[in-house]
Amino acid sequence: MSKRFHNFLQASKDQVDRQLADIAANQATVAVGMGEALDPIIQAYRYVLTNGGKRVRPTLVYAAARAVGHNGQGTGLDHVACALEMIHTYSLIHDDLPAMDDDDVRRGRPSCHKAFDEATAILTGDALQAQAFELLANAAGFRPIQRVTLIKSLAKAAGLQGMVGGQAMDIKATNTDLSLQQLQSMHAYKTGAIIRAALTMGGIAADASAEQLSALGAYGGHIGLAFQVVDDILDVEGDTQTLGKTQGKDSEANKPTYVSLMGLSGAKKESQRLLQAAIGALGEFANTADPLREMAHYIVSRDC
Amino acid sequence: MSKRFHNFLQASKDQVDRQLADIAANQATVAVGMGEALDPIIQAYRYVLTNGGKRVRPTLVYAAARAVGHNGQGTGLDHVACALEMIHTYSLIHDDLPAMDDDDVRRGRPSCHKAFDEATAILTGDALQAQAFELLANAAGFRPIQRVTLIKSLAKAAGLQGMVGGQAMDIKATNTDLSLQQLQSMHAYKTGAIIRAALTMGGIAADASAEQLSALGAYGGHIGLAFQVVDDILDVEGDTQTLGKTQGKDSEANKPTYVSLMGLSGAKKESQRLLQAAIGALGEFANTADPLREMAHYIVSRDC
Repeated sequence: MSKRFHNFLQASKDQVDRQLADIAANQATVAVGMGEALDPIIQAYRYVLTNGGKRVRPTLVYAAARAVGHNGQGTGLDHVACALEMIHTYSLIHDDLPAMDDDDVRRGRPSCHKAFDEATAILTGDALQAQAFELLANAAGFRPIQRVTLIKSLAKAAGLQGMVGGQAMDIKATNTDLSLQQLQSMHAYKTGAIIRAALTMGGIAADASAEQLSALGAYGGHIGLAFQVVDDILDVEGDTQTLGKTQGKDSEANKPTYVSLMGLSGAKKESQRLLQAAIGALGEFANTADPLREMAHYIVSRDC
Repeated sequence: MSKRFHNFLQASKDQVDRQLADIAANQATVAVGMGEALDPIIQAYRYVLTNGGKRVRPTLVYAAARAVGHNGQGTGLDHVACALEMIHTYSLIHDDLPAMDDDDVRRGRPSCHKAFDEATAILTGDALQAQAFELLANAAGFRPIQRVTLIKSLAKAAGLQGMVGGQAMDIKATNTDLSLQQLQSMHAYKTGAIIRAALTMGGIAADASAEQLSALGAYGGHIGLAFQVVDDILDVEGDTQTLGKTQGKDSEANKPTYVSLMGLSGAKKESQRLLQAAIGALGEFANTADPLREMAHYIVSRDC
């Protein structure tokens, strides 16, 4: 990892962490004015938004905007980045619920329904989704049509034709045999749609051309799958402490994984193939896309 | 009820029912193309969108638009009406979950998690929320800035500073003593925010002036509270079959209600006071607001 990319990653994460902490603090202030103590939901809001996540999706927003020539600065762009992370965060909260994946640990801490209770976890997720769209509708420095386009992109990626549909497929796939193609399709919806949206939304924020948006989307498709392949590898090879979630959870739940379908070395080869395809999709971009290029390497070589 | 208003109610409900059935059918078509059978979530989507609800919020959208001079026609306005109903529908699904109000019956049928399962109910609610914002972002015939304003209104009303915050207050209020003011505050968020949003969004769709939006919002505040007061009265006086939900549920759960705080006759007087306040708020509107005036009477005099 170059020093420059290391700094970019750190700066992106710091920026998003700061904004998300501000958003949680603002909600706490508003809640006081609502005339009712809104605990525990306000505490849960802060808990899930200040959890030390890697902030991959916001970082992709900044990197995509830079690839198209945006300087990466501005509250509006920060809010686009935060909206993506808030949708991702809500999906983790709901996925961890006992009725879904029933996971007690998330990012090394008790998951939201364990730290609070199920009702609070459901409502916190619901509120995060609403606020993600509110942030985009208010995003400073963007024309109304840009904001509308950003909202369309996120709503489609988050809904039945994206993340939610993928999660429904995933739940149904437990204890069943999926082909590799079915597994890829499931992940393309479950995690891929939001990752692609992060890239195209960064592009939209920077007034990308249709060709540039298409290239960013293709890159996103490849790294989205790569991300999942690596997740499955880490689920076998990693340990619970480094991962911050229960290791071996997927194989234990008898869920199909890339490793179970391709073997460990097949999955590693696949992650390399996807890395090269992602780099290839960025062909038309100059060195403004170097953060995206390094990001692809980072996603494939990460150990947590 | 005038013949004219009866026809307006019926036409509004038919229009929304048709659009929501189309939306569910379109999702089913898309799901087939996703290469995976998305049952049961697609079935659940249809189940909750074609459930014979009264469609109060969509009707308020049409009535508010008419009050400002809109002819009440157009796919864009239909989609605004549907977005409101989809947010309301998702909130009922999540509120009925065992971890929340734990209600097995909704609109005379098994609630979503009983007809399907909890995971499907959570995901169906999540997908409905995302699609509500997608509908607004795509609403035909509106300028981008109108769509952005519609989305801001709905997102704020649906989130922590609105419906979700109110539901959090409601859960916390079970088995506690609330003052009348606290009860009103809770309902103003839990159900009032979306009802007010329906009215202001109908106004925004019809290019209402700031004064008109303010009057529509004030009217909405009064009928929103009236709606809840009448709900509490019906919870005591109605029977389960007419109501389509478990009668006596709130008092059984030891939740504070208008009836428990004001007595039955006090609650009835309060509903009349709110009715008059709602009519008063419409002072500046001509007879284009007659559907809103009749709507206020209808809400207060309904028996289910």
